[in-house]
Amino acid sequence: MSKVRVHNFAVSLDGFGAGADQSLEAPFGHADGRLMQWFMRTPTFRSMQGQPGGDSGVDEEFAGSWAEGIGAEIMGRNKFGPERGPWANSEWKGWWDDDPPFHTPVFVLTHHPRESLEMNGGTTFHFIDASPAEALAKAREAAPGSDIRIGGGVETVREFLAADLIDHLHVVVVPIVLGRGERLWDGLEGLEERFDIEAVSSPSGVTHVTFTRRA
Amino acid sequence: MSKVRVHNFAVSLDGFGAGADQSLEAPFGHADGRLMQWFMRTPTFRSMQGQPGGDSGVDEEFAGSWAEGIGAEIMGRNKFGPERGPWANSEWKGWWDDDPPFHTPVFVLTHHPRESLEMNGGTTFHFIDASPAEALAKAREAAPGSDIRIGGGVETVREFLAADLIDHLHVVVVPIVLGRGERLWDGLEGLEERFDIEAVSSPSGVTHVTFTRRA
Repeated sequence: MSKVRVHNFAVSLDGFGAGADQSLEAPFGHADGRLMQWFMRTPTFRSMQGQPGGDSGVDEEFAGSWAEGIGAEIMGRNKFGPERGPWANSEWKGWWDDDPPFHTPVFVLTHHPRESLEMNGGTTFHFIDASPAEALAKAREAAPGSDIRIGGGVETVREFLAADLIDHLHVVVVPIVLGRGERLWDGLEGLEERFDIEAVSSPSGVTHVTFTRRA
Repeated sequence: MSKVRVHNFAVSLDGFGAGADQSLEAPFGHADGRLMQWFMRTPTFRSMQGQPGGDSGVDEEFAGSWAEGIGAEIMGRNKFGPERGPWANSEWKGWWDDDPPFHTPVFVLTHHPRESLEMNGGTTFHFIDASPAEALAKAREAAPGSDIRIGGGVETVREFLAADLIDHLHVVVVPIVLGRGERLWDGLEGLEERFDIEAVSSPSGVTHVTFTRRA
């Protein structure tokens, strides 16, 4: 059976996966880039930007495993863009310009379905109004036998965890206190009982915590 | 100048330093022993119980440094006991029976001062109604030149952090989701800006995060 995976999902010490006040200018809200600094130094991130270089090490070992074996992604609408409600700006094609880094079908969860968007490099955005289980069924249909990545944002990951649909969760605990924003862990009391958990700290100061669902 | 230190302070992934519903039967509330399992396996903890053995390793390296150089402790009333309001049970002498592990003066913060309690082994409990800064001045007077430990609970550590009185903070991130209880990080947004921070994970699954105040 293909697995459902979350990778490179950063949270603060106080459990926020995104800051408050997301906007076009601030995709992470008041958190700015603070949750993702460890990631921006990796070759994995730099190659997404068409840039060479980056630091090898623990962070890259984790960052680099996000794509292998993945056949489709599911993301929440807030990861796709800052707009809420009915689509007014039909020119918006995601935060990634013409060449998004996914290279697979991507299912965007929204209460306002619209036509699919075919991008360069094999990424196609499909906009669906679906429960986590329904979205997962669609993603598996689009990518038979492959793993499915849940790409975020916070609410999407939390809903898939609550529905017990995640097999592998990679959380990166960043030693900052954000104070406000979206909490990943709300409503997930006792989550640890369903998973084997390992923690690996990195010289960058972050800790990679992996949750592997018990058989 | 003597330092103000916090050691072995465990928090869940969602930032709770204690569970809900503390009582005589459940000093950690619904968290039971889950926040302190890593600690209970250490020789440091076992020797407090008069028991030999325990596991060496990363957890013991951190656990064992709680006492060296410490001349007094400050703790909140909830660490001393489960009772609230005026003291009705004058027989209560703390969770530790006749021989508490502190071996120094211990200042218990309470709105209901009472006579000091002299215990075996050099521990004396003093009950004072004081702000963090006032309590610290009293502790330093009682232990000139020595470091002062802030022993918890959650509210006490948070108040000393908010007052910027902590020089060294050792937090142990335990990979569990408690869901409810007392949050350590509330009101401390941006705390990381005042500290140098390191993270060290342990085979037990916990991560030791140390905050060292910037000069």
